[in-house]
Amino acid sequence: MALTDRDLVSIRDLSDSEIEAIFTVADDMMRYTRTALTVCAGRLLATLFYEPSTRTRLSFEAAMQRLGGDVISCADAKMSSVAKGETIADTVRVVEGYADVIVIRHPLEGSARVAADYAGVPVINAGDGAHEHPTQTLVDLFTIRRAKGAIRGVRVALCGDLKHGRTVHSLVQALARFGGEMVCVSPPGLEMPPAMVESLSAEGASITQANSLDDLIGDVDVIYATRVQRERFESEEEYERVRQAFRITADLLSRARRDALVLHPLPRVDELAYDIDDDPRAAYFQQAADGVPVRMALLGVILGAVEASGAGAPQRPEPREVAGVRCGNERCVIAHEPYLTPRFTGGDGAPLRCAYCEREAST
Amino acid sequence: MALTDRDLVSIRDLSDSEIEAIFTVADDMMRYTRTALTVCAGRLLATLFYEPSTRTRLSFEAAMQRLGGDVISCADAKMSSVAKGETIADTVRVVEGYADVIVIRHPLEGSARVAADYAGVPVINAGDGAHEHPTQTLVDLFTIRRAKGAIRGVRVALCGDLKHGRTVHSLVQALARFGGEMVCVSPPGLEMPPAMVESLSAEGASITQANSLDDLIGDVDVIYATRVQRERFESEEEYERVRQAFRITADLLSRARRDALVLHPLPRVDELAYDIDDDPRAAYFQQAADGVPVRMALLGVILGAVEASGAGAPQRPEPREVAGVRCGNERCVIAHEPYLTPRFTGGDGAPLRCAYCEREAST
Amino acid sequence: MALTDRDLVSIRDLSDSEIEAIFTVADDMMRYTRTALTVCAGRLLATLFYEPSTRTRLSFEAAMQRLGGDVISCADAKMSSVAKGETIADTVRVVEGYADVIVIRHPLEGSARVAADYAGVPVINAGDGAHEHPTQTLVDLFTIRRAKGAIRGVRVALCGDLKHGRTVHSLVQALARFGGEMVCVSPPGLEMPPAMVESLSAEGASITQANSLDDLIGDVDVIYATRVQRERFESEEEYERVRQAFRITADLLSRARRDALVLHPLPRVDELAYDIDDDPRAAYFQQAADGVPVRMALLGVILGAVEASGAGAPQRPEPREVAGVRCGNERCVIAHEPYLTPRFTGGDGAPLRCAYCEREAST
Repeated sequence: MALTDRDLVSIRDLSDSEIEAIFTVADDMMRYTRTALTVCAGRLLATLFYEPSTRTRLSFEAAMQRLGGDVISCADAKMSSVAKGETIADTVRVVEGYADVIVIRHPLEGSARVAADYAGVPVINAGDGAHEHPTQTLVDLFTIRRAKGAIRGVRVALCGDLKHGRTVHSLVQALARFGGEMVCVSPPGLEMPPAMVESLSAEGASITQANSLDDLIGDVDVIYATRVQRERFESEEEYERVRQAFRITADLLSRARRDALVLHPLPRVDELAYDIDDDPRAAYFQQAADGVPVRMALLGVILGAVEASGAGAPQRPEPREVAGVRCGNERCVIAHEPYLTPRFTGGDGAPLRCAYCEREAST
Repeated sequence: MALTDRDLVSIRDLSDSEIEAIFTVADDMMRYTRTALTVCAGRLLATLFYEPSTRTRLSFEAAMQRLGGDVISCADAKMSSVAKGETIADTVRVVEGYADVIVIRHPLEGSARVAADYAGVPVINAGDGAHEHPTQTLVDLFTIRRAKGAIRGVRVALCGDLKHGRTVHSLVQALARFGGEMVCVSPPGLEMPPAMVESLSAEGASITQANSLDDLIGDVDVIYATRVQRERFESEEEYERVRQAFRITADLLSRARRDALVLHPLPRVDELAYDIDDDPRAAYFQQAADGVPVRMALLGVILGAVEASGAGAPQRPEPREVAGVRCGNERCVIAHEPYLTPRFTGGDGAPLRCAYCEREAST
Repeated sequence: MALTDRDLVSIRDLSDSEIEAIFTVADDMMRYTRTALTVCAGRLLATLFYEPSTRTRLSFEAAMQRLGGDVISCADAKMSSVAKGETIADTVRVVEGYADVIVIRHPLEGSARVAADYAGVPVINAGDGAHEHPTQTLVDLFTIRRAKGAIRGVRVALCGDLKHGRTVHSLVQALARFGGEMVCVSPPGLEMPPAMVESLSAEGASITQANSLDDLIGDVDVIYATRVQRERFESEEEYERVRQAFRITADLLSRARRDALVLHPLPRVDELAYDIDDDPRAAYFQQAADGVPVRMALLGVILGAVEASGAGAPQRPEPREVAGVRCGNERCVIAHEPYLTPRFTGGDGAPLRCAYCEREAST
């Protein structure tokens, strides 16, 4: 199964070899981010954003135009068809008549899978609630790989709120696949979910916990910071204490390795002090810029405009109906789109998971 | 009068021969909906949407880009100039300096006529309140004509709320012009306006009424379903009863002709059961997709980029002021744009109609 | 210092010679406003609008596409990143990774300077609150220069509210630079700020005041009208009286010179009667249309796609911190973006001014 015409809903929709193939193309695309190719001339991208996201939308639209393609853009889809009660399935079946590839962002978990199931053109998930945002993960990996030459053996400190947030959960799983070593540093109560740590460890990944970034800053290759949100804390004092402890400042960075990399999915609030912006190790704006070549590679490959051959396309398990089982996730698309039938994957010992939001099912 | 540089405010702005000429071009355009021509290279379309409409806006923008042209887009015009109190006449006289053709959607009836009167570039009406949405009508006709080879003699069941809604009113008049045969099926109280039926019959059109789709489903070539809105009913029970009776289900469709066509202007709410979507007779997504070649043809022809010659361009009657007569329609543009002079067409026996919203005038 | 890669935050960022060079290119561009050049093929413009402005945004986007370039557009930036608390500095450092030039409109005074300071690509100010809107000033000058052959010696009546409004303040300073003669006509209480008149006179500019447009209409080459806003008046009667006195009507215009020019930055409310629209001297829609060739010239020159050499690029004074001095302007960007350090220009006799909003500092 080639990469042409493929959907990208989850980072698990791509094999390691396919990710490598996309990165090889993205390496080439680095040379064309300030000019325009013509490989996608005559191809049309539709962006359907049910939540605002300047960053992600603009980087997809820039990528498509750097490839010579065109864009039709719906920056605020929530205000239009959906206001008239249209379902995701209907919207994408209309838009597939207009465009050659659809990029969708939607607040419901599993919504991008529904879009992919119904659309006759490839669908790329640009964020479906707390579920997945696979192109962010691709960009994170790409930036690390470019700076470090590879991901295997690279030691990454993940800092901040590791309990919530799809970005960091997708990233640890992707790092594990490529042999990265992970150290999790989070305030009490915001730790990486134990089940996730256990499961990765069981699969042989190197994933450990630490109490303070302060102690290990000299021993890591990458510091991946994430937002710590005020509303996660019971008191203002507690928030303030954590905020200070997890802030990456010039002072802290002075003890980091010379070739360390500070990354952040942006937008930041307060986790990265402004005084590190000029430090050459502060790579978060480069990381944002890398969104263009990575998305150029992805669009080019999916549209069949650029050749890339990766092996071992993952076989998605066939979802099935299971009597007496339901998805209990209120933010799952299944609870909101009436034409969908609850379907699940897993069983035979493995937990049953909703085929859309991938959360464990309720019985 | 050629089609180049023409406005399209009402479907009556085009002669039958001109519509045929556009469809001939649209047939050709079907081959180019997944690539890009260059016939409109260097031409610019402005979309001015004072009401959200993803579907219509995106299909125009896709069409223009498939022709090789470019787009400047205002998806939410209401929030910008108009918020500063700018009139339609001023807005289009500014935008004509930027673009080569303007597509406008505006909630006031007659607004597109005002835009066309003032703009120095062609204006296409993408919906002016309850008045007209001529490109939707063109697409409806085109889809029927492509599937059936012609419109003459094709028997079309129009189902649902036939009292309200410009889509179906425009369609019956257009079908009548091309010799289609119409059967109107609607719940009590939502019938096609009797004056419209009488007037079409008087002109020789075949238009009849039926009580139930159930009885005639085996005898029609096209089933054109429209939305039945809850707010039209006094009680929930009455709504529920009608909803069930007018719903097109797999069961109902099993008795339709093998080559029947189910159409719907979309978005649907509940009138089309999801279980018919995979039936080859369910053509509403094809109908949506046909919006691209039809709008490509229209833009190409209006911009003079594609040759098409239709005969008999309709002569619009010269509107005139009539003492003591006014347009009583509160949703008419005349009631909202201060620089306009009330003008009317008709008289000499025929009813006087507002030159903008085309409703009968009050005296 | 060439024009390539330059920011345009204030009209004072350009020397007279550079403005002339841009106008020479704009003269050429007049021939290409209905076609597309390819000089900017492969270049990408990002428009970041934190306030809606159809007119300005669309004219920049039209200009870029007429040059053969592409656009990524954020028509409502306020609703996206900023809603997540992102700073201007961070947003532009992300967007510089996507686009080759950024056009920004933001309600805070000095915001465009911050964008220019942080972005690695050229930034054009499309309006930063009450501070500057330099491309409007360029367009105003260009329209006068084209109609009159030059600006030197052209007598311009500035009418309406001359106290508030960046448009007219920027324009008088620019006219003074090019030797225009100005007559200010405003209602009591809405006069041009005396300090501004004195300062321009001291520099040798010809700037006088008059009580009524009625008396001087036959003696001026250009009538530049601006909006008089109801909220500036204490009573409805006072507003009504002024409104009538400052309205340009066909009757008033009948006494103007045959080759006079009526200009207005648009949108108008009531200052220009609709009955003058067809008068050939009514040039405000031409003025709006001139926005395209002027912005084409500017984008082409800044992107290095079109050659233009102007001499004497202004040296912006180096801003510095001054102990005990602060910017008291609540609408200044310094009061809202936490990473900025208050900096000032001036001193040594000249008043200290905030380096961002350019208002006089408080001590």
